Amino acid sequence: MLFKVDMTVNIPRDIPFAEIEDIKKREKDYSQQLQREGKWRHIWRVAGLYANVSIFDVKDAEELHELLMALPLYPFMDINVEALCRHPSSIRDDDR
Amino acid sequence: MLFKVDMTVNIPRDIPFAEIEDIKKREKDYSQQLQREGKWRHIWRVAGLYANVSIFDVKDAEELHELLMALPLYPFMDINVEALCRHPSSIRDDDR
Amino acid sequence: MLFKVDMTVNIPRDIPFAEIEDIKKREKDYSQQLQREGKWRHIWRVAGLYANVSIFDVKDAEELHELLMALPLYPFMDINVEALCRHPSSIRDDDR
Amino acid sequence: MLFKVDMTVNIPRDIPFAEIEDIKKREKDYSQQLQREGKWRHIWRVAGLYANVSIFDVKDAEELHELLMALPLYPFMDINVEALCRHPSSIRDDDR
Amino acid sequence: MLFKVDMTVNIPRDIPFAEIEDIKKREKDYSQQLQREGKWRHIWRVAGLYANVSIFDVKDAEELHELLMALPLYPFMDINVEALCRHPSSIRDDDR
Amino acid sequence: MLFKVDMTVNIPRDIPFAEIEDIKKREKDYSQQLQREGKWRHIWRVAGLYANVSIFDVKDAEELHELLMALPLYPFMDINVEALCRHPSSIRDDDR
Amino acid sequence: MLFKVDMTVNIPRDIPFAEIEDIKKREKDYSQQLQREGKWRHIWRVAGLYANVSIFDVKDAEELHELLMALPLYPFMDINVEALCRHPSSIRDDDR
Amino acid sequence: MLFKVDMTVNIPRDIPFAEIEDIKKREKDYSQQLQREGKWRHIWRVAGLYANVSIFDVKDAEELHELLMALPLYPFMDINVEALCRHPSSIRDDDR
Amino acid sequence: MLFKVDMTVNIPRDIPFAEIEDIKKREKDYSQQLQREGKWRHIWRVAGLYANVSIFDVKDAEELHELLMALPLYPFMDINVEALCRHPSSIRDDDR
Amino acid sequence: MLFKVDMTVNIPRDIPFAEIEDIKKREKDYSQQLQREGKWRHIWRVAGLYANVSIFDVKDAEELHELLMALPLYPFMDINVEALCRHPSSIRDDDR
Repeated sequence: MLFKVDMTVNIPRDIPFAEIEDIKKREKDYSQQLQREGKWRHIWRVAGLYANVSIFDVKDAEELHELLMALPLYPFMDINVEALCRHPSSIRDDDR
Repeated sequence: MLFKVDMTVNIPRDIPFAEIEDIKKREKDYSQQLQREGKWRHIWRVAGLYANVSIFDVKDAEELHELLMALPLYPFMDINVEALCRHPSSIRDDDR
Repeated sequence: MLFKVDMTVNIPRDIPFAEIEDIKKREKDYSQQLQREGKWRHIWRVAGLYANVSIFDVKDAEELHELLMALPLYPFMDINVEALCRHPSSIRDDDR
Repeated sequence: MLFKVDMTVNIPRDIPFAEIEDIKKREKDYSQQLQREGKWRHIWRVAGLYANVSIFDVKDAEELHELLMALPLYPFMDINVEALCRHPSSIRDDDR
Repeated sequence: MLFKVDMTVNIPRDIPFAEIEDIKKREKDYSQQLQREGKWRHIWRVAGLYANVSIFDVKDAEELHELLMALPLYPFMDINVEALCRHPSSIRDDDR
Repeated sequence: MLFKVDMTVNIPRDIPFAEIEDIKKREKDYSQQLQREGKWRHIWRVAGLYANVSIFDVKDAEELHELLMALPLYPFMDINVEALCRHPSSIRDDDR
Repeated sequence: MLFKVDMTVNIPRDIPFAEIEDIKKREKDYSQQLQREGKWRHIWRVAGLYANVSIFDVKDAEELHELLMALPLYPFMDINVEALCRHPSSIRDDDR
Repeated sequence: MLFKVDMTVNIPRDIPFAEIEDIKKREKDYSQQLQREGKWRHIWRVAGLYANVSIFDVKDAEELHELLMALPLYPFMDINVEALCRHPSSIRDDDR
Repeated sequence: MLFKVDMTVNIPRDIPFAEIEDIKKREKDYSQQLQREGKWRHIWRVAGLYANVSIFDVKDAEELHELLMALPLYPFMDINVEALCRHPSSIRDDDR
Repeated sequence: MLFKVDMTVNIPRDIPFAEIEDIKKREKDYSQQLQREGKWRHIWRVAGLYANVSIFDVKDAEELHELLMALPLYPFMDINVEALCRHPSSIRDDDR
């Protein structure tokens, strides 16, 4: 199942720089691992913002929830989730 | 350049059924032509709504504007546009 | 998969009374058929409003979309969809 | 009487980890006790969010207020309440 | 049980004057009957608006729903409902 | 003159417990004194929230402002004010 | 008592031109009469909009309501009302 | 040129009382000086709120900006600005 | 004085095509005349929308109001106005 | 490509004065450098607010993102981005 997830990041100013760097590194590693597994299908930066638009391809809402909760940056994110379907006008049977 | 475009469709009730069918058919043909040309990269239906989330890959804002204005359903759409960039965590140099 | 769906109904004033009665009857029949099939798990009226809160139990977003699109009252509804998961505090393994 | 309650949790970052764990444990115990008593009829996690959708079955608004105020996580919750009625299309006389 | 109900009225311009007068008269009669029965405890006009703030005292949400649905002006109203409780600072045990 | 006042309370977490208890006690005393003087006509708790709906009966906006500013909890309140009039459908000449 | 009233005008397109001219003329006459009586203290146009910001000086909310309801353009206005007090920093005891 | 300015004040709780008193005194002195110069034409308190509605009469937007930026309370204010014009229905050629 | 004006156009569907073409032609002529006079300094299309962002350079709010009210498309526009000043970081004394 | 960027600045109160002065100086230098390079085409102050309206002329969304992320005040800004096109009514082929 496909979900669009909008993530906007706000890191509090009182977190030490080294800790932020560590969180961001783990976030990147985790994101790339999920991308390689085909679960995090797309991730795009929104121009000018510390925010992204992502497409997840997961078994169900349960799996999506677990993947998002494990994001190292999750505590600092505003999240918006929309369930997606194949569009009848799509030329790809499997547009992921 | 990549743009995310959210489209929500509201067709007025006083348009004759045959005319709506014709508009929808032309919309589908036009959408599929742009998909084949690689300009309309993705189109997903939002579950439960007459709405889609789309990714366009165009030369610039000018081309995006022309493509959207030519949508047969454009007069009945609410449109939201966001400019996208490659995300530094993406594993694909060219995630389109 | 479970989805919460909020539906608010606004029937235009220019639809003949007999037609509205027919639509409402078909809506009720359809809703009760889906309830008997276990796909429309719950439906509650919001006090004071022509609106309901519903829980659907479907295979995926695709099936939810098809069920909602077939609602006789769909053209007159505002719809809001949220994907649900089992809650870790629930005492029912299968709270539907 | 039935009420739908939406709860969104935001725990401040300066609460010690052990204290949060304790609050969450008491929240879970309390929620499960109310579920066993039949007062907290349903609780579902909203996918991707630290939030739930719940259905309460209580004597009146007074009892709902007391139950919610006693939630260990209440000080960190945004709460939205809607009074519900039986829906005329429901196939269950007592859909709780 | 007490409920606060905000009602804002928007009567479409194409309803004949005589019909509006008739609806308003029936609305007033109905409102006053419910006031005499003690179910519509208070009704105040919001200054400058075609809107009121009302307090209902009913058995439950079911009864509130039926009373509101029977308002002759209901089809032209925006309605907002909030369930109320006795306030611990109130000097009246039965502030209705 | 009648005013509806909605008050929502948010007490910051860093105020010592004893100080909060003292503020709440003074709030209650002050509220009950105004109720006895007939200036604070009604106060209801909104179910599930730390919020109330109140009706004030004062000489003018000036007096309302002074009464509200003197609330011990005022610094922690979100306030919304609406001026009310007698409603033409009210059966009470003096519905306060 | 002073009230600030924001009025935004939206005249439907299907009202004949002569009728609109007549309504506007009566609106202007009525407004100027109230200004001469000292009840409509100020009226300013909001730059670029068919909207005004006005200050009324009336006996109470009841009188304000009656004055506004009698505006010939009232059926086509969005209205926002705020009760005002003398400001402690004002150098005029009677700033109207 | 006339501008309507809405100011809402939120003073953080951690500023020492003596400092707040000093800021408020300087704010009042400054406001009254501008009133005497005819630049701050009106200032009204919004009933029940720590907020005012003000009318400024300045040479241009540049002067308005400088006057507002110099408000001692400016760092704690939410500000909304609207440019005003003479209203064609005003009976005063110079309604300031 | 500079003003930023956002204009969003919604032309009703029941206006005959020839009339729309005429309005649009007059709008374009009028806009270009004001541009040549230096009063309409900039006009940009918002990508994907029937909307523009414009910068006006006028004597005062009065002149802005008259220019906007004379737009042939004005009856079909949503308008938002913000007064602008020279920015202290601008490298142009006269950035228009 | 042209982008309109709205920036609103909120500097936290706990940053030392000298540090703020340094950040603002670097912001100004950086802004003026980009203006001289022709990438930051316009910057106007919004009257009464610590906010600006800016026009950027960049190669693509990627370059815009990098330029904005490097703003010394970026961590304290709310940012809104809109992609712009040449407007068909513009009298300048190259209105930047």
